[in-house]
Amino acid sequence: MTQAQQLQQILRAVSSVDALHLERARAHHLRLTKPAGSLGRLEDLGAQLCAIAARTPPPLLHRPAIAVFAGDHGVLAEGVTSWPAEVTAQMVGNFCAGGAAINVLANHIGARLVVVDVGVASPLTHLHHHPDFRSRNIRYGTDNLAQGPAMTPEEALTAVLVGAAIAGELVDEGADLLVGGDMGIGNTTASAALIAAATGADALTVTGRGTGIDDAMLARKQAAVAAGLSRWRQQHATTDVDADPMAVLAMLAELGGLEIAALAGFFLGGAARKVPVVLDGVIALAAACCAAALCPPAVGYFIAGHRSSEPAATVALRSLALEPLLDLQLRLGEGSGAALAVPLIRAAAAVMHEMATFDAADIDGSEIDGSTNDGETEAVQ
Amino acid sequence: MTQAQQLQQILRAVSSVDALHLERARAHHLRLTKPAGSLGRLEDLGAQLCAIAARTPPPLLHRPAIAVFAGDHGVLAEGVTSWPAEVTAQMVGNFCAGGAAINVLANHIGARLVVVDVGVASPLTHLHHHPDFRSRNIRYGTDNLAQGPAMTPEEALTAVLVGAAIAGELVDEGADLLVGGDMGIGNTTASAALIAAATGADALTVTGRGTGIDDAMLARKQAAVAAGLSRWRQQHATTDVDADPMAVLAMLAELGGLEIAALAGFFLGGAARKVPVVLDGVIALAAACCAAALCPPAVGYFIAGHRSSEPAATVALRSLALEPLLDLQLRLGEGSGAALAVPLIRAAAAVMHEMATFDAADIDGSEIDGSTNDGETEAVQ
Repeated sequence: MTQAQQLQQILRAVSSVDALHLERARAHHLRLTKPAGSLGRLEDLGAQLCAIAARTPPPLLHRPAIAVFAGDHGVLAEGVTSWPAEVTAQMVGNFCAGGAAINVLANHIGARLVVVDVGVASPLTHLHHHPDFRSRNIRYGTDNLAQGPAMTPEEALTAVLVGAAIAGELVDEGADLLVGGDMGIGNTTASAALIAAATGADALTVTGRGTGIDDAMLARKQAAVAAGLSRWRQQHATTDVDADPMAVLAMLAELGGLEIAALAGFFLGGAARKVPVVLDGVIALAAACCAAALCPPAVGYFIAGHRSSEPAATVALRSLALEPLLDLQLRLGEGSGAALAVPLIRAAAAVMHEMATFDAADIDGSEIDGSTNDGETEAVQ
Repeated sequence: MTQAQQLQQILRAVSSVDALHLERARAHHLRLTKPAGSLGRLEDLGAQLCAIAARTPPPLLHRPAIAVFAGDHGVLAEGVTSWPAEVTAQMVGNFCAGGAAINVLANHIGARLVVVDVGVASPLTHLHHHPDFRSRNIRYGTDNLAQGPAMTPEEALTAVLVGAAIAGELVDEGADLLVGGDMGIGNTTASAALIAAATGADALTVTGRGTGIDDAMLARKQAAVAAGLSRWRQQHATTDVDADPMAVLAMLAELGGLEIAALAGFFLGGAARKVPVVLDGVIALAAACCAAALCPPAVGYFIAGHRSSEPAATVALRSLALEPLLDLQLRLGEGSGAALAVPLIRAAAAVMHEMATFDAADIDGSEIDGSTNDGETEAVQ
């Protein structure tokens, strides 16, 4: 089977979430001992979990798994960040040693963590025997997207398939919830360019300060995004990428990163296995936009964990019609914002399993409809 | 010792949080392997935990405890809610049987839960032997605040002392984080009136739909709040309650609820024991406003868990200068929104304990200052 055929197989495996269980979940919530609708977004989230699993109540999600994909970025040559590229490899080492924020947050939620090298700029042979490390390097970093394509469409496709395969392995090994994280110095630049390309936004709107840069760097970053975007738009002025996987791969190749392409595949792989997928900040959202363009029904499996401070994140969330669970002004990546949202997702599942019903608890008022989310009046019998 | 002396003793025991440890915590965060400030509000929260405990890094908060205080409200005679008063007692039974949302959320975060009857309208003798039940009934529900004082200042003081004593017992038994919840049909009416009285807001601004009421009920609820508020303001036109504990007790007596007064005491009791206190929705916020008026330094121990949909909640949060961690459109009470925030608070503590430092992990860039929260530029050396 060619790689293109493997991609088609994954895309075909993603079916829409089960609308019947959205309704069953809502009916179940009405029987629980609380005013109707009073758990707010936790009820919507519970219904989404039921629709994903086609089970009401949904699985309890005791076995989350986090995959952090790492890659380097040729666009660093444009002077878009104050961090040296070497930090990508150093942080991969830190993930394997257990010292990064995502390690702490993974422990905090009882998640296993794997670290996947898809495009780090230097060999990481010293990590090859680490049990949590996956060596899947496709190339030593991308080319400079401001000057030409970041990679070839074949490389982007390989990265997508690596991501999907990692998702499949984690689910095979028991994971029931997937969190995708990223590490790659310079990757907010590539993510901004991809989100602009996927949504039609302009370079100034999507480009932000990443982990914190000065005005001169921001101007260079905006220029780099604009240059890549302009090149892409000249080539694809009439193409609607949503209808065309090859066009999405071309977009990833032109403007992307290897870790972003892998994350797109990871999210598709989770959706194909009917597992909820928690999105993190702007890099994960760039990947989610690509995954949605490759396969629109995949979005039903996505849960936005956190609103990144990056402006492109808000553009992407609007395009995907997702509202994040958290807004804590994080701008770290690694999957940190998504990991922090996992306890809320589990709580949404737990209330559907463990709460008493009005009948069972012999409490008056199950017929009272308190669902006035829109401020409209409700008749009380 | 008189009850008034007991209150003075609690108020004197609340000292300001330790500003030195705010600074130590910030310095500690700068050494951790992440861009400066990139954990956003989790860093502020970690610093607050350090200041509360006067320890950097802060305690890990493995032993949270939740107390749900229950009371009934005479203002139901005004037709302000569609729920019958009997539901308060029925839900207390549900809490003891483990079937309510707060039971599920308590299990979810590994918290112990106690249920305290301070003012339920009927005897709950069948629960007296339940290990999680505390029988501290002061009276069988309040009087109608729209027509006259809800209770006497002495009863309000007794309720405050009950709440403070419960906080002390839980801390004595090992609790290192306190969550306060409420149960009381009609208590959003009393909370709105108290928040208006404490902040100077008007009745229309603070009165919302609670668990969901129609337009006619909303109008009656606004009228009830306005009537109580107008009576209070005629009596206390020139009194600044912040300077005067007896005036705060008078305000609680005029407009409050027994569970609200007990929650105010519970929050003060937590602050007196130097334990972080997590606030829930509008009822907890009404209590927090009273606690802050009794003892302004107590606010340093408060963490706002969740933004309630009730308009008075936002008025109270602004007055207390607190920003909630979550906004999930909950309108349940019971401590549910606060309990959902607990994993975030623990995560803030955990990163300060478990993350590697730049030096220890041998990663470049510890000197890079990425703290551009306000969009200002930062020089890169």
